[in-house]
Amino acid sequence: MTKHSLPLSRVYGLLEPGPVVLLTTAAKGRANVMTLSWHTMMEFEPPLVGCVISDRNHSFGVLKATKECVINIPTAELAAQVVGCGNTSGRKLDKFRRFGLTAVAASLVQAPLIDECYAALECRLADARLVAKYCFFILEVRQAWIDRSRKDPRTLHHRGKGAFMVAGRTIKLPSKMK
Amino acid sequence: MTKHSLPLSRVYGLLEPGPVVLLTTAAKGRANVMTLSWHTMMEFEPPLVGCVISDRNHSFGVLKATKECVINIPTAELAAQVVGCGNTSGRKLDKFRRFGLTAVAASLVQAPLIDECYAALECRLADARLVAKYCFFILEVRQAWIDRSRKDPRTLHHRGKGAFMVAGRTIKLPSKMK
Repeated sequence: MTKHSLPLSRVYGLLEPGPVVLLTTAAKGRANVMTLSWHTMMEFEPPLVGCVISDRNHSFGVLKATKECVINIPTAELAAQVVGCGNTSGRKLDKFRRFGLTAVAASLVQAPLIDECYAALECRLADARLVAKYCFFILEVRQAWIDRSRKDPRTLHHRGKGAFMVAGRTIKLPSKMK
Repeated sequence: MTKHSLPLSRVYGLLEPGPVVLLTTAAKGRANVMTLSWHTMMEFEPPLVGCVISDRNHSFGVLKATKECVINIPTAELAAQVVGCGNTSGRKLDKFRRFGLTAVAASLVQAPLIDECYAALECRLADARLVAKYCFFILEVRQAWIDRSRKDPRTLHHRGKGAFMVAGRTIKLPSKMK
């Protein structure tokens, strides 16, 4: 694996721009992956991430039971896999095999990292209070990984119905904002 | 105003890609605006949006009291205003005047639309359950507006400390995803 540990204080910079992510879970030695765009940072450090996972998804029950997952961040080269994972269910299908994704052992959780993604966040469930009403999980990032050789990751940003904006150029303005 | 009504079923396509937004509030005839990146869709229709507004912000108290706001979506031309609104407090400053933003009356809420933004979502507070612990407001979008002449809006996506990714090209893949 080419990923290095990223300080938890820098996690927000990965998720604030709103990339589509691949969320992995695992139960009974069987891993699954789903595509997800409905997430937001909720706290800088320790980093809290809120995300909506529909109860129609196989991952919903696994995350609720195991209280662990990994948020993997793909780039544009993985667009076909992102859509493939979003259009299939892990109930019967091994999506890693089907879409040629490589599962790598995480350090703290059972769910695997996806080797092809440039960053990965190992998460534990922090608050399930809004799961019943909104399918909204609040996760705490416990360990973050990044491939530092990827200087300008072209993340994908879903606009709906298979249309994705691909991350463009970066501009920098003087700012006091974190 | 050059904005037209947008069906509520299409709101998710505006917020899923994670653009930085300008959130307006108003109380006692005085409007304010803040910059915000921590938001997520939570339901398609009626559209629910969750967002974190720190209790250090002037807007926190106004939104809590009035239960209304507008989420305005700016494009790259407004980068200086976005950073300006993020680095100042509405407690004493009239940010509309300071940053040359035009307030336009909304249809359902007291908070104004920002004329320079290409889209605007009039919201009412739907659930304040997580406000005390996480400053997390769940908003329902009641009326959506879009400037249809803007075919390819270059939204801004905050990477931290004044660095923004500018929306790049759009790719389209066959998908069953909404």
